[in-house]
Amino acid sequence: MSKLLIVGSVAFDAIETPFGKTDKILGGAATYIGLSAAHFKVPAAIVSVVGEDFPEAYLEMLKDRNIDISAIEVVKGGKTFFWSGKYHNDLNSRDTLETQLNVLADFNPVVPDAYKDSDIVMLGNLHPIVQNSVLEQLTKRPKLVVLDTMNFWMDNALEDLHNVIAKVDVITINDEEARQLSGEHALVKAARVIEKMGPKYVVIKKGEHGALLFHNELVFFAPALPLEEVFDPTGAGDTFAGGFVGHLAKTENISFENMKKAVIHGSNLASFCVEKFGTERIQELSHEAVQQRLKEFKELTQFEIELS
Amino acid sequence: MSKLLIVGSVAFDAIETPFGKTDKILGGAATYIGLSAAHFKVPAAIVSVVGEDFPEAYLEMLKDRNIDISAIEVVKGGKTFFWSGKYHNDLNSRDTLETQLNVLADFNPVVPDAYKDSDIVMLGNLHPIVQNSVLEQLTKRPKLVVLDTMNFWMDNALEDLHNVIAKVDVITINDEEARQLSGEHALVKAARVIEKMGPKYVVIKKGEHGALLFHNELVFFAPALPLEEVFDPTGAGDTFAGGFVGHLAKTENISFENMKKAVIHGSNLASFCVEKFGTERIQELSHEAVQQRLKEFKELTQFEIELS
Repeated sequence: MSKLLIVGSVAFDAIETPFGKTDKILGGAATYIGLSAAHFKVPAAIVSVVGEDFPEAYLEMLKDRNIDISAIEVVKGGKTFFWSGKYHNDLNSRDTLETQLNVLADFNPVVPDAYKDSDIVMLGNLHPIVQNSVLEQLTKRPKLVVLDTMNFWMDNALEDLHNVIAKVDVITINDEEARQLSGEHALVKAARVIEKMGPKYVVIKKGEHGALLFHNELVFFAPALPLEEVFDPTGAGDTFAGGFVGHLAKTENISFENMKKAVIHGSNLASFCVEKFGTERIQELSHEAVQQRLKEFKELTQFEIELS
Repeated sequence: MSKLLIVGSVAFDAIETPFGKTDKILGGAATYIGLSAAHFKVPAAIVSVVGEDFPEAYLEMLKDRNIDISAIEVVKGGKTFFWSGKYHNDLNSRDTLETQLNVLADFNPVVPDAYKDSDIVMLGNLHPIVQNSVLEQLTKRPKLVVLDTMNFWMDNALEDLHNVIAKVDVITINDEEARQLSGEHALVKAARVIEKMGPKYVVIKKGEHGALLFHNELVFFAPALPLEEVFDPTGAGDTFAGGFVGHLAKTENISFENMKKAVIHGSNLASFCVEKFGTERIQELSHEAVQQRLKEFKELTQFEIELS
């Protein structure tokens, strides 16, 4: 099994959807990625920062899932990153109500020695300078570096973003962000432009419309499972990324064929994430439930067709 | 091979997209359905109506593809149905600029004797009373009746629409229309509500986001092929329907497993339709090009995953 290093926020979220609202609950990109990847039982560590207000119980919960939390810095007297948002009725868009960077504002990630030779590095959504600083601490080139980012950095730190994008193997990004980054509307063209920026693999996440994996002339598509209820989309993209890298780390195989499976595993785990608020569903999830839904993914997409 | 009866408009369209505009060109639901189904070389007839202004060459072109045009009534002194529309920049929405019903206003479809015992009947988008009148002329219950409709009839002839929906086996409808007809936002729920109205199979077309096939607890998804250029979406839904019924008629098998293949064939043909204006691409399309793209569909969606 490959060693997996995860960098990203560990945070508090307060979420409002048409179905209800939460107080401050556990959130953050690295949290979702870690909980999702933990389903593959790979050696993983999270590099992040929280404040003194962050409950010990949350850290223990991550540790219980065999996630190395020694590089989650707890800043004395500091407050944890906080985001609050409200989803619109269709759940496809949301308004940010509040963002308190708090300890994330001065975050200097320190990669633990034991993870400086990680095989797979997942750079969760953060300032690209922070993502870059993680790469610079590594003692060997990982087999695979995966980067997630968002439009905010395209608007506010594009040059820094390009610098880190040039160094990664895979980028995961949503459809609108792919269009913004590339200047192309058609996703096939957008992926081609982004591949020229560095990443050999481009994953475009389309939310309820599934995800596309591009590599040279190859393309693979995984639908989102049609769900009766989408309760809270928060963290779905990070859960996808966690399943993607989790599968690749477990199987130690970064071929395109295996990445297709990784996309399915990511989509599968993300389909659970949205069923409850925050990390609740992905925390409680059993191996059997995951396997059952993988079966549904097969039934949803697989067909036999004769070519003549 | 099953006998296929197609009912729908044969028309003139004038189309404007971000890439150009056309004068009056060949259009109409039955035209697209017929040209698409013709790729399966099944015995097919179109029931429709045109005016004296309709070029003989268009009728000949349909006839050359072995489509029985004897039930396309040519009204002396009448004018052919005309629609003109302009697509927005993202091609996902359009404004109707002009609709001239002309001869379609008084259309009384007459099913030719040779097709009164058709195995498969495709009711293209028309007033539900006209669709119903076709069913009432049949001398035996077809193996499969497929109905396409649109929001216009939900707004203006809902009771008539419900009357005909109750009699069909398959309904094809887009996502927004499925939501309107069912009152449910989640497509899984919408399909379940629509199945209670009569059709045992519900196909929900999501344009560039693919198509879903529902039947009881079963669901199958076919993506749209990611294209570099979508030139003109006009007729894509009808081309999909033509491929769907064409495959079913050719194979004489209306099982869910075979309907999955029919959805893929429909999606495949629709992916060509949008590459040029109007029916141009679907008219010129070779068997080899169709087969090649089916292969791309397989590569796009098929994966091997081990369940444990």
